[in-house]
Amino acid sequence: MSGAATNMRIKLPVICMILQVILIILFGTLVQYNHDTDAKEWHANASHSDYENDFYYRYPSFQDVHVMIFIGFGFLMTFLQRYGFSSVGFNFLIAAFSLQWATLMQGFFHGMHAGKIHIGVESMINADFCTGAVLISFGAVLGKTSPVQLLVMALFEVTLFAINEYILLSLLGARDAGGSMTIHTFGAYFGLMVTRVLYRPNLDKSKHRNSSVYHSDMFAMIGTLYLWMFWPSFNSAVTAHGDDQHRTALNTYYSLASCTLATYAMSAVTAHDGKLDMVHIQNAALAGGVAIGTAGEMMLTPGGSMIVGFLAGIISVLGFKFLSPILESKLKIQDTCGVHNLHGMPGVLGAIVGAITSAFASTEIYGKGLEDVFPAVATKDIESSQQAGFQAISLVVTLGIALLGGLIVGFILKLPIYGSPPDTICYEDNIYWEVPGEEEHSADQLTNVRAEEIEKLNE
Amino acid sequence: MSGAATNMRIKLPVICMILQVILIILFGTLVQYNHDTDAKEWHANASHSDYENDFYYRYPSFQDVHVMIFIGFGFLMTFLQRYGFSSVGFNFLIAAFSLQWATLMQGFFHGMHAGKIHIGVESMINADFCTGAVLISFGAVLGKTSPVQLLVMALFEVTLFAINEYILLSLLGARDAGGSMTIHTFGAYFGLMVTRVLYRPNLDKSKHRNSSVYHSDMFAMIGTLYLWMFWPSFNSAVTAHGDDQHRTALNTYYSLASCTLATYAMSAVTAHDGKLDMVHIQNAALAGGVAIGTAGEMMLTPGGSMIVGFLAGIISVLGFKFLSPILESKLKIQDTCGVHNLHGMPGVLGAIVGAITSAFASTEIYGKGLEDVFPAVATKDIESSQQAGFQAISLVVTLGIALLGGLIVGFILKLPIYGSPPDTICYEDNIYWEVPGEEEHSADQLTNVRAEEIEKLNE
Amino acid sequence: MSGAATNMRIKLPVICMILQVILIILFGTLVQYNHDTDAKEWHANASHSDYENDFYYRYPSFQDVHVMIFIGFGFLMTFLQRYGFSSVGFNFLIAAFSLQWATLMQGFFHGMHAGKIHIGVESMINADFCTGAVLISFGAVLGKTSPVQLLVMALFEVTLFAINEYILLSLLGARDAGGSMTIHTFGAYFGLMVTRVLYRPNLDKSKHRNSSVYHSDMFAMIGTLYLWMFWPSFNSAVTAHGDDQHRTALNTYYSLASCTLATYAMSAVTAHDGKLDMVHIQNAALAGGVAIGTAGEMMLTPGGSMIVGFLAGIISVLGFKFLSPILESKLKIQDTCGVHNLHGMPGVLGAIVGAITSAFASTEIYGKGLEDVFPAVATKDIESSQQAGFQAISLVVTLGIALLGGLIVGFILKLPIYGSPPDTICYEDNIYWEVPGEEEHSADQLTNVRAEEIEKLNE
Repeated sequence: MSGAATNMRIKLPVICMILQVILIILFGTLVQYNHDTDAKEWHANASHSDYENDFYYRYPSFQDVHVMIFIGFGFLMTFLQRYGFSSVGFNFLIAAFSLQWATLMQGFFHGMHAGKIHIGVESMINADFCTGAVLISFGAVLGKTSPVQLLVMALFEVTLFAINEYILLSLLGARDAGGSMTIHTFGAYFGLMVTRVLYRPNLDKSKHRNSSVYHSDMFAMIGTLYLWMFWPSFNSAVTAHGDDQHRTALNTYYSLASCTLATYAMSAVTAHDGKLDMVHIQNAALAGGVAIGTAGEMMLTPGGSMIVGFLAGIISVLGFKFLSPILESKLKIQDTCGVHNLHGMPGVLGAIVGAITSAFASTEIYGKGLEDVFPAVATKDIESSQQAGFQAISLVVTLGIALLGGLIVGFILKLPIYGSPPDTICYEDNIYWEVPGEEEHSADQLTNVRAEEIEKLNE
Repeated sequence: MSGAATNMRIKLPVICMILQVILIILFGTLVQYNHDTDAKEWHANASHSDYENDFYYRYPSFQDVHVMIFIGFGFLMTFLQRYGFSSVGFNFLIAAFSLQWATLMQGFFHGMHAGKIHIGVESMINADFCTGAVLISFGAVLGKTSPVQLLVMALFEVTLFAINEYILLSLLGARDAGGSMTIHTFGAYFGLMVTRVLYRPNLDKSKHRNSSVYHSDMFAMIGTLYLWMFWPSFNSAVTAHGDDQHRTALNTYYSLASCTLATYAMSAVTAHDGKLDMVHIQNAALAGGVAIGTAGEMMLTPGGSMIVGFLAGIISVLGFKFLSPILESKLKIQDTCGVHNLHGMPGVLGAIVGAITSAFASTEIYGKGLEDVFPAVATKDIESSQQAGFQAISLVVTLGIALLGGLIVGFILKLPIYGSPPDTICYEDNIYWEVPGEEEHSADQLTNVRAEEIEKLNE
Repeated sequence: MSGAATNMRIKLPVICMILQVILIILFGTLVQYNHDTDAKEWHANASHSDYENDFYYRYPSFQDVHVMIFIGFGFLMTFLQRYGFSSVGFNFLIAAFSLQWATLMQGFFHGMHAGKIHIGVESMINADFCTGAVLISFGAVLGKTSPVQLLVMALFEVTLFAINEYILLSLLGARDAGGSMTIHTFGAYFGLMVTRVLYRPNLDKSKHRNSSVYHSDMFAMIGTLYLWMFWPSFNSAVTAHGDDQHRTALNTYYSLASCTLATYAMSAVTAHDGKLDMVHIQNAALAGGVAIGTAGEMMLTPGGSMIVGFLAGIISVLGFKFLSPILESKLKIQDTCGVHNLHGMPGVLGAIVGAITSAFASTEIYGKGLEDVFPAVATKDIESSQQAGFQAISLVVTLGIALLGGLIVGFILKLPIYGSPPDTICYEDNIYWEVPGEEEHSADQLTNVRAEEIEKLNE
């Protein structure tokens, strides 16, 4: 990549402008308000009350999901000492693009209405969900890619996400409300394959920047905590109204709490001198949210949810400690944020838990609520064991599309035209951002001068 | 201003205590719970259900607005390297005052009930909205004013805001749910006029502090992202129940996403060496929320919303790059946060978009929902073209009141009695706050010592 | 404590794992979904609509409370210069444990259903509330305790909290929706007694670390503002549906605003040179939320709420300025975060205000809404004066259980087996965490090198 210009004056504006203009044209021709957002449609039916508008069921959850996407993912990645602007800034850029593109792709695959895509709060949540998968992949390649590369990656990944989601939810009839498969497994393995293809043998030249400082870890904890706190909203955002949203939020809450204790335990037992490692706390404590993504809406029981979180926390810390170094040295997978440990393995665990829990679905347990969670089982079109089978197939399909898609997109991103950073200057804001200095010292010296000035003034 | 004491021991406590005692007396005599917050009133009517209480329609939006006011505005202004305490702290102080005073002023102008002001969640949102305008003006004078000056400014600005709002919404029948005119245009031009009157010819003596450092830009991004994420709630907080809130949130969501891509494009193309400029990202990416403030509740279409955001992002970055330096050098307007680029021009754009969109209002498009958005057009009291005219007049009125009000209040704030900082010590927390040092170095040295101590202990 | 090993490799994992496994077993055997979260139960009744599910009444409030617990308390305590990881990290750990344990303890005391504990969003809020009390106590001992000690403290404190809450709410019929007594008074005096028993005569050896730096105060303001903004949700989270939640939020909003002005006034008048003190702003401005905890749901009037907040702000700042030094020097109470000033005294004030307001309860004021707030008065089982008496007794009971409980638990925590830090290394992350260095200087030097490299590349 020597000699490649990292200057973004032409490339970034051109791609942003082209993408946005295309989006505006496509939205202008294809996208319409849905029944609950269109003034005429909503008021055409006089028999419903305002509080039946889907807005009131889902908007608070949407806002929590929105915070997870922009603050949660954005700040989680600010742990790098010299990459805070890029972490939060590129997260912002590719999320703003992805949610628009996802609206179109998901609308296209999940049901057009007379040639038009109808949108409302549920499609907004789904667009944010799809964006989440892109941001997971971003975590794998963090510090080693240019913003143009990231936009190109998002363009393809959103498309593949929508295809995979369509196969799982519409063709296979799988359940995956919190996206253990569609979001986490897909985003992680796609990103891991991309970073594999973009393997940099001389990345150790930037090693001194691939670490945190005290304050950057504090910023990252903001991201961690928002993801942790709002994960119950994430998993319940698109489940059915009523008991389903309620139960999903509750299951996620206990899974995460249990996962957190497991994470602290495993971090202390594995880390240097018995000291806690911020990398584990920032990431593994979240694995309980990932692993409960599929089964969260099911009658998993609170105790069952806690077991899932407990296991997720353990495998996630073990992954950071033992598996990540092997992936890097043996498989040449340079996974900056360790997304394999937070999203990959816990996502697979979540898919398996979902399949097993599905196998026990019955009217005895769910009553008439079975229709909400497993409609095909409720109508006796399939047995619950078949549902479990479709859940398992969905995991395999997701892994296949993610890995194959990541492979192809990785090679597309390998073209030397995107202004990606050389190996010596990875994990560095200075390439793409005007970076101010750290004036604190001179400021401190000034402080004394100023203190004197102020005293004079006040005399 | 030489010789003016910046010591706040007497001035600040006196004005805070006087204002708060007056507020308590006025609230005690004039303010009552409204129908939905009063135990007796609410329970007098047995025919409604609890979920019909306005609390459930608006409280989640209120909380998002509340976060925008205190975290959003507060942290957005922490970009200055030595003014973080004041940015977030004075923001906190003047917001806490303004929301109380706004409750009274808005209650007074927008309908007394038998001599009493009735309050509930909607009045709380409106009070926060009014506070937003004051905080925009604060952005223009940031770093150059004392807390006493800011409280005096808030006192007058809230009053003028309520008058302007009354003229627009009640007398002219204009629509402005998200406040492109009442909040953003008003707050920006009021603040710009105040900072013009308070012009400091020797401000370059503080120039070295009027800039960011790495961590202060990270803190500012917290403010930016909360404003960005919750703007859909802001614009939809007081629109009519049902499709109106839903549609407004959706329009704002897409306007902001589109604006963000435009901002990144324009930042790279205009900034030094093609590098992105944090000032643009922190501010211009929000212009899409401002510009959709008036038309957000209308049937603008998602594509239309994206066009509005796109334009807002472009003019905002251009403003930062080319207009702000001219305003400072030619018109002597020292606009610390660039509120003209984030709130001023996008606010005017929003007003114009609102007027144009109003002109197309019809039963054909809105159905029976026309009553919610344009009641006077629905009842055929006026034509939609007249509505558009009233919208345009509203912009002119707002600009007039803001500029004239800012002029008068500016001269009131010029009196040398408020303890404002001298030109040499602007943008400096040390004047008004006990500021701790930065002990990191000695701490680092200590770390080694401690590490040894700990090792000994663990042996 | 000399010679005590602070190494946590065995102790922390063992206690975390044991506690979590016990929790899982107890949840598995005792805990069930309640009517609104169980698929079968909810769907058994066809006559209700989805929007009647308690999820929609309380989940937005729950999420706000959740943010207060993890971000609010967590970041409020990051003001210490070298204790940010521990503040936010131990807060995270003990909260994740406490909320699970609280679910069991509160379920046990507040009503079993056929031998099972039924849970849903309201029990989740109550579990978070109980966790809040533990975190208040954590504030008193911050920097001087090991994570194992904190988990043991939480284990006992949650249990005592549930007992006290049961006595107050179920036996005495007291009202305390926002927890002035059950949460704030209890948590504060329990923690103060624990820190008294754990008195460290040589703590001045760590004095240089028991203070803030510029950035740590900025992080702490994030905690402050989230607590401040979401306190209306906290106090209204478990009040009755409808006007009660609405009124409680409104009362809290005005109490906090009023408190903030009082805090700024008192800070400037008492602090050095008339400068504002961040300790006051970060803490005392919140006292208005504490003090309105009991009476918030009552017909206190907006003006009355503002008086309560005003008084709370004044006593809180005076406490920080004059009382805390005396408590430390005379009573040997080392209260790191000053919880006596933020939670202790304002909590007692809140209990008194609640008792007084109860005395004026009548059908004349509350109408049929009296049933929601004072059911025993509404059914004429007791007079309102008796209700006031029970409120007052509740305060005394709370103080008694908190102080006695803190005494006993303090002695349990004094055992030299928990790996607590020696006096010389208190307030120091390095003991329990892998702490990265502060690389900014070398980074700055690198910046110049890199800038040259990049220029070359772009040529």
